[in-house]
Amino acid sequence: MDAVRSAPLAGLVVVDLTRVLAGPFATMLLADLGARVIKVEQPGSGDDARTFPPFVDGESAYFASVNRGKESIALDLKDENDRAILWRLLARADVLVENFRPGALERLGFGWSSLHARLPRLILASVSGFGQTGPLSQRPAYDVIVQAMSGMMSITGHPGQPPVRVGTSLGDLTAGLFAVIGILAALRARDRDGAGTWVDIGMLDGQLAILENAIVRYLATGQDPEPSGSRHPSITPFQAYACADAPIVIAAGNDTLFRRLVEAIGLPELSEDERFATNARRTERWQALQEILERRLATAPAEHWLGVLADAGVPAGPVHRVSAALAEPHVTARRMRVSTRLPSGTPIEVAGNPVKLWGFDDPPDRPAAPRLDGDRAAILAWLDRPEG
Amino acid sequence: MDAVRSAPLAGLVVVDLTRVLAGPFATMLLADLGARVIKVEQPGSGDDARTFPPFVDGESAYFASVNRGKESIALDLKDENDRAILWRLLARADVLVENFRPGALERLGFGWSSLHARLPRLILASVSGFGQTGPLSQRPAYDVIVQAMSGMMSITGHPGQPPVRVGTSLGDLTAGLFAVIGILAALRARDRDGAGTWVDIGMLDGQLAILENAIVRYLATGQDPEPSGSRHPSITPFQAYACADAPIVIAAGNDTLFRRLVEAIGLPELSEDERFATNARRTERWQALQEILERRLATAPAEHWLGVLADAGVPAGPVHRVSAALAEPHVTARRMRVSTRLPSGTPIEVAGNPVKLWGFDDPPDRPAAPRLDGDRAAILAWLDRPEG
Repeated sequence: MDAVRSAPLAGLVVVDLTRVLAGPFATMLLADLGARVIKVEQPGSGDDARTFPPFVDGESAYFASVNRGKESIALDLKDENDRAILWRLLARADVLVENFRPGALERLGFGWSSLHARLPRLILASVSGFGQTGPLSQRPAYDVIVQAMSGMMSITGHPGQPPVRVGTSLGDLTAGLFAVIGILAALRARDRDGAGTWVDIGMLDGQLAILENAIVRYLATGQDPEPSGSRHPSITPFQAYACADAPIVIAAGNDTLFRRLVEAIGLPELSEDERFATNARRTERWQALQEILERRLATAPAEHWLGVLADAGVPAGPVHRVSAALAEPHVTARRMRVSTRLPSGTPIEVAGNPVKLWGFDDPPDRPAAPRLDGDRAAILAWLDRPEG
Repeated sequence: MDAVRSAPLAGLVVVDLTRVLAGPFATMLLADLGARVIKVEQPGSGDDARTFPPFVDGESAYFASVNRGKESIALDLKDENDRAILWRLLARADVLVENFRPGALERLGFGWSSLHARLPRLILASVSGFGQTGPLSQRPAYDVIVQAMSGMMSITGHPGQPPVRVGTSLGDLTAGLFAVIGILAALRARDRDGAGTWVDIGMLDGQLAILENAIVRYLATGQDPEPSGSRHPSITPFQAYACADAPIVIAAGNDTLFRRLVEAIGLPELSEDERFATNARRTERWQALQEILERRLATAPAEHWLGVLADAGVPAGPVHRVSAALAEPHVTARRMRVSTRLPSGTPIEVAGNPVKLWGFDDPPDRPAAPRLDGDRAAILAWLDRPEG
């Protein structure tokens, strides 16, 4: 590529009232893409996430992992002087992001109608558990609640076991991604007609939007989808299988791949077996097929079979723990393991930005997460300078 | 709100070579936000997803659920005439989206360097398993493989059980969301300097980006995170608890909410119990706490406790199956359950668009998924009309 271009969101100013995860994850993505993110925190304590484990040298590495590259100013939104500073910030901003309970921003005097009346170009993005409208909008929500209420927990896990939560805060993270999409779409509309809008993202909505075939299976058939362990509900083989020492995953759903799989592992007779002749039949008899395959896979370790399957062109892979996932040279080559710093300056590693744009910079070192109120002087000086 | 504004992405033309899920999910979001999406399919069979269950009247409801509102034209990319049509389409397009294996588009003659040389404003978005670069880029990948290789499966499920895959195709869906973010960011850069870019999204990268605290816990402590059932790894109570008839989830991580919880369910002595005085202590003794809470919760059904906890302002909710999730009046009020049509015209219901933008239309009826090649005549007529 030629010379590196300015970051795609260069020039965009985001005022960020968000705390904990969903909102901060969204604004981190905006910062990674080049936006200037000014994090407005509560004086004294700041973002709750500053107290969340794990800690490195007494500082929250969790906080740093979702707040790199932002600036911080502490403002008491009930104090007149500080409120005036927030208004001055908003007058210079393109986007305000918040994840208070619906109604709370309005009670502070910064509700959508006040904002839009005074700053008609400003985009407000609100991330909440259930969205700004609807009968449940006032209910408090946390990740596990929307994972449970959306049905996501009901389709994850092994049948007959206690409920399983997706091991990451999927409700928050998905809402953060939809918030970024909403903000960027709203900016495009504003470029055309000059008006801001209110981006209203509900965590529950986001979970429903990614239920995928579960939602259409239920709506098309009236049958509630069941959890299916590591299996895909309608593709077989497409799951984890135990080898002698560890499980591997195999994704060989179509007939060609299935033939290659059974030939590669020395069970060629299965490709002629009428019981397993189509994906539909294999899915119906997935348990019988699993027993046959695992009896064979149990004769050698995972690494052996992964080599055999790679040679045969059968999609397969190891079930990595986090350490092994991050140790893959591919992950470093893709800059998905990057360094940043705690507010004190201590270096730590975190996940990189998965939005790879050719011709733009994707540095392996990311700017630090801010100290609470650490950018006050610079931010106030900027406000005093004329715009432009 | 006043009169409805034109859709945020109105005027945007997207040529869509994608199949199955990750790419089609991305282009569906673009279509929902107002882009014109022209789906280019293989003559004869079209998108593989047209053959995926569930079926309604012999047509794939799965296909319709991620392809509503798109147009379809069948083109044989190895035929000279059809290739010329694709070039004409691209000359009128803002974005080309594809999810072939890396290198396949180039072998067809539509690789990034050819596209960029001929159409310097065009944005190419590629979604693949491992991205366009790095040692694993040529490996075939499916959802279960990136869920396994990213570590996502290793943190989902109950300890000591066989691996659990997140019950939705999270690898594909997350990649689709990052692709939309990349496309919208690339459009913003192009608005500034006139140049297109290549948006390079890897499913594995996307999974790593949402591992959240698992990644920072490992990198900060060197300890591999364990699966933790329905529990949050560092907040307690924040999990599912069994009641007399069914489980509920409770999210009462801070000390105030914990006090409210134990008082509401008639165990006020726990708020004075030193063993459970802080979140850190509760997390350390989550099992003992679960036994005490469940002994009490077993005395009444879930519905009783949900009422008690709602009255006390303790965040809690039911563990819904998909049917119950969709039956919530809130879901309909939020237009997260919408109607669309199969290519033949048969109505079905699907999940709505979670990106709610005030002042823009969010119709409860969504345009149909296309018949294979169903829009050929209209698309060709459009190509024959002068631009503008």
